[in-house]
Amino acid sequence: MEQNELVEQITKAVIRKLQEAEGGSGSPSASTAQQSQTRPAQPGEKPVAVPPTAQSLILPGELAPYIDHTILKPEATAEQVAQVCDEAIEHGFYSVCINTTWTEFCARRLRGSAVKLAVVVGFPLGAMDGRAKGFEARHAVELGADEIDMVMNIGALKSGRLTEVEQDIRWVRRSIRQRTVLKVILETTLLTDEEKVIACQIAKKAGADFVKTSTGFSKGGATTHDIALMRRTVGPKLGVKASGGVRTYDDALAMIQAGATRIGASSSVAIVSGGQGSDSY
Amino acid sequence: MEQNELVEQITKAVIRKLQEAEGGSGSPSASTAQQSQTRPAQPGEKPVAVPPTAQSLILPGELAPYIDHTILKPEATAEQVAQVCDEAIEHGFYSVCINTTWTEFCARRLRGSAVKLAVVVGFPLGAMDGRAKGFEARHAVELGADEIDMVMNIGALKSGRLTEVEQDIRWVRRSIRQRTVLKVILETTLLTDEEKVIACQIAKKAGADFVKTSTGFSKGGATTHDIALMRRTVGPKLGVKASGGVRTYDDALAMIQAGATRIGASSSVAIVSGGQGSDSY
Repeated sequence: MEQNELVEQITKAVIRKLQEAEGGSGSPSASTAQQSQTRPAQPGEKPVAVPPTAQSLILPGELAPYIDHTILKPEATAEQVAQVCDEAIEHGFYSVCINTTWTEFCARRLRGSAVKLAVVVGFPLGAMDGRAKGFEARHAVELGADEIDMVMNIGALKSGRLTEVEQDIRWVRRSIRQRTVLKVILETTLLTDEEKVIACQIAKKAGADFVKTSTGFSKGGATTHDIALMRRTVGPKLGVKASGGVRTYDDALAMIQAGATRIGASSSVAIVSGGQGSDSY
Repeated sequence: MEQNELVEQITKAVIRKLQEAEGGSGSPSASTAQQSQTRPAQPGEKPVAVPPTAQSLILPGELAPYIDHTILKPEATAEQVAQVCDEAIEHGFYSVCINTTWTEFCARRLRGSAVKLAVVVGFPLGAMDGRAKGFEARHAVELGADEIDMVMNIGALKSGRLTEVEQDIRWVRRSIRQRTVLKVILETTLLTDEEKVIACQIAKKAGADFVKTSTGFSKGGATTHDIALMRRTVGPKLGVKASGGVRTYDDALAMIQAGATRIGASSSVAIVSGGQGSDSY
């Protein structure tokens, strides 16, 4: 019970600070995390803390450097994973995002290219023991991974066990190199706005480089509302990755306009061609 | 291509042997793995290789020792996990089945009771690096787990990389104690009947104590067809666990009559009360 009160107090304090930072001298147009749930960022509205390039219109072909080209379904074959690597090289995607069983295979396939290798850890439930997440991450880095997309301990957050949520991320941060990029997946569809804010704060404190919306394996994916909330919470320096259900050029652009600096997608080729993907994540 | 041919040859050989073993001197009633797909085991039909108790009718209250009482959803709170432990003690379920983040918590909660502690590993995609599965399993055993429910490397099987599928299971088998029970989850809904047979053979060869149908997080769960096929393939000595979608007493009884020796369920209390559960896995 004590912990729950603490959670509530922190939440209120964070949301108050966000309101202050956003509303300046208390102008009536100040939107709060609460309000923006019912009023998603409008097209044309100035996005919060987005890199300069994203503030002007990005053409489909210019989206490639934002994209983690992703294949995570358990039944994916070596042939399909290889194809994703080859597409990433061909289209100049930022990275390939895979399950750790394919780390060595993809590191070899991508060798000599500029494409980074991102792997998922404790995926997709985030309910794996923190030390095991750390081991999975370290071993993947040893085999060639450049970026780790770990899932947060959602159950611990829901239980108000915030020290455990932070410790879980720290296990992974400590297990990998300083230059290895660490993304923390919140699985926003399972969280309240208050929980999203707390999760962002903890991820930032524990040394994450990115916060990321979704695994693609739960009830829902990225929304512009969540991206804007996450961007406001972590500030301009951390990365924000939109993932899950981003299937078209319009989807991707809306996410970037809302504050995303990275897009996770399996329909990446369709996105940079201005078309629409139908693939599952 | 060579590997695919090998897979096909092994499959044919295995299915031929199963037909021989089943049909005796080639009686016309001999059912094959192929035929049983369209003709599930009928009620009253003699089940294959089921323990003596299961051959007579089991009353709802007598099902408890068959059940792994399960809570695996990522948003499960400490309170909900504790409740599952308490229910297992109250109703005499065989075990509690949880994600590894809760291992220590549940080991403490179950201390002094007869309820075993089962944890899932590489869950639910099975696409985690084999060494990481081994670490997750070993660490869980150190914290008090009695049984490990690991997910097979489905993508490797689909790619015909059968040595990798076996190696993956061996990493876990070697990481845990000899007395620790190892179950291998096939995720049958993603496999053809031929792949199910191959998966069972590999799991048995690699030292599994059980084969298990499903994670509960994919498209489908346990069927009597799959249980019967798995039982025929592994023979009478290995365990077969039916999991995913088993929500009523009738479901559970049908699985046991088809050859299951263990049931994974979250609706366990409803099952032993003769009612129907609505909980998601």
